[in-house]
Amino acid sequence: MTATEQKNLQFTSSDEHIRELLTHMNIISDLGAFSALADWDQQTGMPEGAGEARAHQMATMQGLIHERLTNPRLGELVLQLEEVVKQPEYTDADRGLVYHARRSYDQSTKLPREMVEEMERVRVKSFEAWVKARHNNDFASFSPWLQRTVEFQREVADRFGYQECRYDALLDLYEPGLTASRVDVLFAPVREVSATILKRIQESGHKVDTSSLSNTFPVEKQQELNKHLLESMGYDFNRGQMAVSAHPFTTSFGSPLDVRLTTRYDEKNLPWSIMSSLHEGGHAVYEQGCAPSLLRTPLASGASMGVHESQSRLWENGIGRSEAFWRGQFPIVQRAFPEQFQNLDAKTFAHALNHVEPSLIRTEADEVTYNLHIIIRFEIERALINGDIAVESLPSIWSSKYKEYLSVEPPTDSLGVLQDVHWSSGFGYFPSYTLGNLYGAQIYSKLRSVFPDFDARLEQGDTRFVLSWLQENMYAYGATYKPADLLKRVVGEEADPQYFVRYLTEKFSGIYNL
Amino acid sequence: MTATEQKNLQFTSSDEHIRELLTHMNIISDLGAFSALADWDQQTGMPEGAGEARAHQMATMQGLIHERLTNPRLGELVLQLEEVVKQPEYTDADRGLVYHARRSYDQSTKLPREMVEEMERVRVKSFEAWVKARHNNDFASFSPWLQRTVEFQREVADRFGYQECRYDALLDLYEPGLTASRVDVLFAPVREVSATILKRIQESGHKVDTSSLSNTFPVEKQQELNKHLLESMGYDFNRGQMAVSAHPFTTSFGSPLDVRLTTRYDEKNLPWSIMSSLHEGGHAVYEQGCAPSLLRTPLASGASMGVHESQSRLWENGIGRSEAFWRGQFPIVQRAFPEQFQNLDAKTFAHALNHVEPSLIRTEADEVTYNLHIIIRFEIERALINGDIAVESLPSIWSSKYKEYLSVEPPTDSLGVLQDVHWSSGFGYFPSYTLGNLYGAQIYSKLRSVFPDFDARLEQGDTRFVLSWLQENMYAYGATYKPADLLKRVVGEEADPQYFVRYLTEKFSGIYNL
Repeated sequence: MTATEQKNLQFTSSDEHIRELLTHMNIISDLGAFSALADWDQQTGMPEGAGEARAHQMATMQGLIHERLTNPRLGELVLQLEEVVKQPEYTDADRGLVYHARRSYDQSTKLPREMVEEMERVRVKSFEAWVKARHNNDFASFSPWLQRTVEFQREVADRFGYQECRYDALLDLYEPGLTASRVDVLFAPVREVSATILKRIQESGHKVDTSSLSNTFPVEKQQELNKHLLESMGYDFNRGQMAVSAHPFTTSFGSPLDVRLTTRYDEKNLPWSIMSSLHEGGHAVYEQGCAPSLLRTPLASGASMGVHESQSRLWENGIGRSEAFWRGQFPIVQRAFPEQFQNLDAKTFAHALNHVEPSLIRTEADEVTYNLHIIIRFEIERALINGDIAVESLPSIWSSKYKEYLSVEPPTDSLGVLQDVHWSSGFGYFPSYTLGNLYGAQIYSKLRSVFPDFDARLEQGDTRFVLSWLQENMYAYGATYKPADLLKRVVGEEADPQYFVRYLTEKFSGIYNL
Repeated sequence: MTATEQKNLQFTSSDEHIRELLTHMNIISDLGAFSALADWDQQTGMPEGAGEARAHQMATMQGLIHERLTNPRLGELVLQLEEVVKQPEYTDADRGLVYHARRSYDQSTKLPREMVEEMERVRVKSFEAWVKARHNNDFASFSPWLQRTVEFQREVADRFGYQECRYDALLDLYEPGLTASRVDVLFAPVREVSATILKRIQESGHKVDTSSLSNTFPVEKQQELNKHLLESMGYDFNRGQMAVSAHPFTTSFGSPLDVRLTTRYDEKNLPWSIMSSLHEGGHAVYEQGCAPSLLRTPLASGASMGVHESQSRLWENGIGRSEAFWRGQFPIVQRAFPEQFQNLDAKTFAHALNHVEPSLIRTEADEVTYNLHIIIRFEIERALINGDIAVESLPSIWSSKYKEYLSVEPPTDSLGVLQDVHWSSGFGYFPSYTLGNLYGAQIYSKLRSVFPDFDARLEQGDTRFVLSWLQENMYAYGATYKPADLLKRVVGEEADPQYFVRYLTEKFSGIYNL
């Protein structure tokens, strides 16, 4: 990193207004850490009977964060600083700080505190209701919570404002500036290439050999294996922790110093835990890689959720489902499961992880069909928020879309509309995954051009060169730059779906001999 | 519970000032829950590298709690309400709420916010330093943190004020109104009876048979066993959780809905985990027993730390080290360890748990020598806070006191002055344990007089009648009443060490045939 780049990660604390703004944002960031910790606790260990107490606590916390974010002094500071930080003696970190403070101030002042608190109470209880509903395959018990969430999200959208459609206001929360019509443009080639490759695979009659995965893999051994894989990809357990939850996730209580992830286990399904560990590991190394100087600020995070997913999907798929990676890492798998994988080679294992088949569950989907799961959710979310469909109709719409896009039909709602945690808290996140696949493919292509011996190094079991490069060129900056600016810094151009189209076509043409 | 008693657990929410005060205290209580959750996390799972971030977060939180506790409007409300709630139409819960709000307002307004924040930063880092120092047997590395804590605690005492000695101000934090000279009076008979019985046991030459405990007890099986024992004593896992930490503790993030405990394990030492589970279980059923109407208020807690320890020590010792209890529960132990306890009877097991021998570690001490460990700490704390001894001299003073009181000498500081977590956060807590033994013996005596078939029911494996009685007559009230008032309600008289003297004398005369 050059001296200029390093300087750009520092705040100009000689400016008393920057110092004052930092104090505001440090406190807000600390409160956010408590909120995230309580969320982590709720998903990894909280007793069932604690829900009522926790809902009150979380509402109180969101109310306090809202109080801090709407502090008129914060608004004044931001206005004063916006012009000032454009001057060249200020740093990109200063500019990023002012940008994020402004954005959260503007958003927060559009929502009354009582609404923020009530939304949080509903979110906590809705999560509980979702866990039970999925467990009992009981959409009807979740439906009233979903209804309230939809109403709140519509109100949020209306208060935030939008140009083309109401759903755009929610998309903007996760990917600043994103609109549904832009998603249509970006996703069209993805949809087309997915359908085309799937059809070619199905028509080819070729199959990959997945018989090695039809076995029993004790959970304890899987946990050890995942720990080794995460260590091998550079996740630092000294600043992290791995736990178990119903829906895997990554969270931070102060990046880069405390970044934790969860996974889930099924002794009959080894890829489930491995691939979700690599996915969450991607999120986690991104957060662990941000510069320590950004601690306790909104910059100690990812540039957007799409950019965040670019790293989870890059590590899970571009790297974690490549033959070269498993040539390097398969010995770890064999050490964990010597009996199960005695006579298997890395190539067969890697190919088995790339078995393509339309399926019901998004998080288990192969790379070819994955984005179709996302497009289904995007279409449903947009219609739901824009008011074109009703909550009660979700199970049947879900089924018909799965039939249309993937030719499968969920036998239960638990395997259908209830499978994901996301809608217990809000709408607008799902497109981030496909955006992540697009950004990820661009970054993957860049990595391969920077390192002509990319595969050879992976085959030797080395992934640290990838992490180092990403850390220096991308992770260190956290949310200092806006997504498009960051992408330009990292790959030199704008978002372009053609990288993903080429990646998918080449990869699966190879594996399936198309 | 009578209608009057039930009414006394409700707040008079028809009074708008009570409602307003409740809103203040609800928020403060919620913030306290976040702080407790972060503490729980630090002791049960937080990665080592997160310390710096966590210290900032905890300081921010204490600063915000302080800000809320010193809110001038809170002060006004309390002044207005103090006279009002004396009227008979108000409830004991109202009076308790105003008392606690007043007490915390008075205390908080005596400390500047910056001091509270810095104390919290030091506390978090001091805990970390203690963990490392104990692990490495390195008192010198902990000493500077201890020094800062002593200085802070002296300043707190000076700001709070006191009549006889500075240490009194700290005692008052845990047991309102307690003074060192009162401790001297209460502890004198305890010290005497402990020394007397110990001498008589040693001179008798009698030994209890502990050979059954010299075995290996796999940690997983111990965990299952402790879970069963806790369930059997009425701890509700639906509103709780059991984890592992270096120093066992109980905490609450909203009593009675979320009360958790930890224990620790050594496969060579079964009593360690069993007795600490019963001890923490006693704290936990107390908190779980408080009336749901007290949720999110300072009344949803124990009446004082001495009263709290009365329940941990009652369940651990009065009940949990009695022969009758183990006649009822030993089958659970045998199911967990069928090989180890194949040919053992409950009486021999119970007696083994009552083996008396001067030892180095407080938490493992028998009931005869336990209070000598406390008296040592009390004497050291008092001298340290009053300025009569220096931090550097603690290891040698510790050794000489252990020699004097218990005729043992710690070979290392880890087994000596570094064994307890308490001094990483403050001083004045230790006397609560012996107070707890005194209160506990009185309550135990009351229980036996209420239930003439006390032993017979324990022998049948029933402990629920104890929990029900305590819940109705004591636990439900939480901190509604001051310790002395609560004790009078429960046992009908004031604190009196003679109950403990008689309990100890009778019990050990029996076991050791004195």
